Amino acid sequence: MGQNPGKIICAGLGPGDPDLISVRADRAIRGARQIAYFRKKGRSGQARRIVADLLAADVIEHAMEYPVTVEIPFASPEYNRLLAEFYDDWTARLVDLARAGDVVVLCEGDPLFYGSFMHLHARLQGLVEVDVIPGIPGMTGCWNAVGQPMTWGDDAMTVLMGTLSETDLTRHITAADAVVVMKTGRNLPKIARALQAAGRLSDAWLVERGTMPNQRLTPLAQADLDACPYFATVLVHGHGRRPLADAAE
Amino acid sequence: MGQNPGKIICAGLGPGDPDLISVRADRAIRGARQIAYFRKKGRSGQARRIVADLLAADVIEHAMEYPVTVEIPFASPEYNRLLAEFYDDWTARLVDLARAGDVVVLCEGDPLFYGSFMHLHARLQGLVEVDVIPGIPGMTGCWNAVGQPMTWGDDAMTVLMGTLSETDLTRHITAADAVVVMKTGRNLPKIARALQAAGRLSDAWLVERGTMPNQRLTPLAQADLDACPYFATVLVHGHGRRPLADAAE
Ligand SMILES: C[S@@+](CC[C@H](N)C(=O)[O-])C[C@H]1O[C@@H](n2cnc3c(N)ncnc32)[C@H](O)[C@@H]1O
Ligand SMILES: C[S@@+](CC[C@H](N)C(=O)[O-])C[C@H]1O[C@@H](n2cnc3c(N)ncnc32)[C@H](O)[C@@H]1O
Repeated sequence: MGQNPGKIICAGLGPGDPDLISVRADRAIRGARQIAYFRKKGRSGQARRIVADLLAADVIEHAMEYPVTVEIPFASPEYNRLLAEFYDDWTARLVDLARAGDVVVLCEGDPLFYGSFMHLHARLQGLVEVDVIPGIPGMTGCWNAVGQPMTWGDDAMTVLMGTLSETDLTRHITAADAVVVMKTGRNLPKIARALQAAGRLSDAWLVERGTMPNQRLTPLAQADLDACPYFATVLVHGHGRRPLADAAE
Repeated sequence: MGQNPGKIICAGLGPGDPDLISVRADRAIRGARQIAYFRKKGRSGQARRIVADLLAADVIEHAMEYPVTVEIPFASPEYNRLLAEFYDDWTARLVDLARAGDVVVLCEGDPLFYGSFMHLHARLQGLVEVDVIPGIPGMTGCWNAVGQPMTWGDDAMTVLMGTLSETDLTRHITAADAVVVMKTGRNLPKIARALQAAGRLSDAWLVERGTMPNQRLTPLAQADLDACPYFATVLVHGHGRRPLADAAE
């Protein structure tokens, strides 16, 4: 120990169904002696739920609990300060834990795609070896849940965060063929207005908990906009602008 | 037989490393009695290469060889007619083959994301049961190969096909924070000009054969634009517009 420190292995978990984890991440999780995962205070955490049946009986668990989620406006200096402190603190703790061997950090979807792990990733550079295992992004699980091709031929697809302003959302949606909107939750009414303004509301699906046990698919125009969970994504399928246009279709 | 026909199972293979196939697709491929995959005439095919070490010794293989790739301009009616015939023909053959049991169709990346399988998917509806297993998209393997977070905070990410016009490419790139351009190949000089016009050329990476044995990463500004393989993707990382802006960084 100390001589030969372990690695931080960030394992992408995919959209939620444990069967959609990659072979490499599945192996890392099953073999893990120590795991770490983000969660909201007082919740069990989605990442932990996804791997529940894969963990060794004697695995050591580290829950990284966000100091704050929606209690403070996220544009405030206080929010930034608390989160920066939280990531700094866990960086130091992970470096320390790695002295006893590898730590597998769990991350929903793909870790390098809008993931919280990236805040640790940046801080861990140079302090410890970090290995990231890609995952199927949540949005990919969502469009597979709908079961229709998301993009065809020359389609342009844009991925947006529901935290953007209504003006920005409308502008981006108008320019795109296929659209993905993540971080929906309380932003859903604004997202629906932007889709309406861009003339795409009637094409939009709301996918709640895609590939998870309680998955739900609803045409957005029929959804309750005021009751949207955190794991929910809005999808607008592409126009199917196919250079391989099928004469026969 | 005939009474109880098999399914068409389309297995997403992910970006290229067999270890990045999902647990479910890995199981389907190892257990397959019949597989089918697209390839160019006279080539062994990337999909077949990815699964080489997973296949049962006595698996029955069906190579679906494109009747044409770049010999005829793809906007021509002749190209469309040949491809429509090809997909119609394989639809009938797959329905027929499924009478003997499940057929696993291999598909690089995620099948419903700009995949050739979608042309069969549309035609197979109502004729036979079709089951699609999601995969890690090629682009996700590519940004993991670069090893930097692709998108942060409020970043908007746009996915484009190199077959678009230079004007369309420039317009989309200018509006986005993070950019992915697929179908590069002979379109690479045009893609580089569009990135230059949008002021993003110096931020762009060329990822050739991401996660495959002969992977190569090159800053696009230094790449040979006239020697780009089919499995190559251009990436521009996001601006890192973080609502969780880290005071400490
Ligand atoms: C902080 S981002 C994390 C993204 C993750 N790294 C990925 O690759 O999907 C969280 C957002 O992803 C979306 N999301 C992730 N998994 C999802 C799922 N299974 N169903 C619906 N939305 C999902 C939701 O919009 C959620 O607000
Ligand atoms: C017809 S699209 C198929 C996309 C696939 N269904 C997916 O999800 O990635 C083929 C394009 O994907 C990109 N691509 C797929 N895998 C790749 C890899 N491993 N490395 C680089 N580019 C890749 C290339 O730009 C290629 O021209």
